[in-house]
Amino acid sequence: MTSRHRSRSRSRSESKELTRQALLRAALKLLPRNSFDSISLREITREAGVSPTAFYRHFDDTEELGLALVEEAFGSLRQMMRDARADPAMTRDAINRSIETVVVHVHRHTDHMRFIARERYGGVRRLRQAIRRELELFSEELAIDLSVFPALSAWPPADRRMFADLITDTMVSMAAELVETRSPEGEDEIVRRKRQQLLLITLGVDRWSPHADPEDAGHDADAS
Amino acid sequence: MTSRHRSRSRSRSESKELTRQALLRAALKLLPRNSFDSISLREITREAGVSPTAFYRHFDDTEELGLALVEEAFGSLRQMMRDARADPAMTRDAINRSIETVVVHVHRHTDHMRFIARERYGGVRRLRQAIRRELELFSEELAIDLSVFPALSAWPPADRRMFADLITDTMVSMAAELVETRSPEGEDEIVRRKRQQLLLITLGVDRWSPHADPEDAGHDADAS
Repeated sequence: MTSRHRSRSRSRSESKELTRQALLRAALKLLPRNSFDSISLREITREAGVSPTAFYRHFDDTEELGLALVEEAFGSLRQMMRDARADPAMTRDAINRSIETVVVHVHRHTDHMRFIARERYGGVRRLRQAIRRELELFSEELAIDLSVFPALSAWPPADRRMFADLITDTMVSMAAELVETRSPEGEDEIVRRKRQQLLLITLGVDRWSPHADPEDAGHDADAS
Repeated sequence: MTSRHRSRSRSRSESKELTRQALLRAALKLLPRNSFDSISLREITREAGVSPTAFYRHFDDTEELGLALVEEAFGSLRQMMRDARADPAMTRDAINRSIETVVVHVHRHTDHMRFIARERYGGVRRLRQAIRRELELFSEELAIDLSVFPALSAWPPADRRMFADLITDTMVSMAAELVETRSPEGEDEIVRRKRQQLLLITLGVDRWSPHADPEDAGHDADAS
């Protein structure tokens, strides 16, 4: 919990990074019972054991700290994706492997995942936007990965992207539900249901006709 | 906790209801830029133009007011579902009609829908639980409705429920995205993508084998 004191054995930049990490950890620790916009700078510095002055050496305000958390959370997600992609089992057994990867990730980074689920539609516009952008990137990369599957390789990129969005949404909602669950039975139930849903989604893949938009089939909705 | 104040022209219960409504409206009005747990009782009463004492005649605390908002939001959703069910066009053109219904609902009740999207995984446990329960009820009712479709009528109820959960999740995520969007083009794009996703999901329906769980196909995930 220390910080502002200079240890001779540690370099200044090391110690600066430790303070930054302490601030990020403190914010995550306060999140289970709060939304991000209800946490004050002073609560974060108190939890981290550093002074408000030290805070300002790292972030302009709590919003900027929130953006750093978004980056951290998606940084580890991207790493996870890269590892999963390198695993040859992924193409053989994509649904189970993807689910497994997300479950492990939620266990290891529960606080980050809670933060993402909470702030995706939360009270801070800049965080909502940053999370949306990151999820879009995630889905774009997934759409590229998906083109290795024969049934999907002939799809127009826009349709593959639509499919990737659906998978991403399903995975995000699984992660958000897992964070909320306290029992292993609850977790098994969530995983079982999501697995069935992903399987159902893939059953339609080779029947998809590009641009098969039911709008063309006489849609008369006027949304306004 | 009663309103013992006198309006001669209005009945006591009418005026009490008006205060309650003013408090609910005030909380909704504060939400676009705040999470629910960052709004104080005093901010709500100031916005509503009533005294904190008047607040306590209606709610024990802000959390209880939040629960009343959950009830209001899902009350209107249920009404919408009932109306949609009574419309014979629903079975002919279920995807477009359902989407249209949700879009109209989001336009009419933007603040309520924002509240649900925000607090579904928000900082207040009781609100998260109340919203989860309501969404479960919504999905249960949908599962019953879905049994009129020939392809789904033979499914075991648990599988129909899994399917209803997927539709519900897709609709909730559409509503949450619509609330965030500011342009008609953005709205069209969201609706178009969700329509394609729902179509893709339904393409697999008649290929589904009950209990078709990929777990049986040699799943070796160990989630822990």
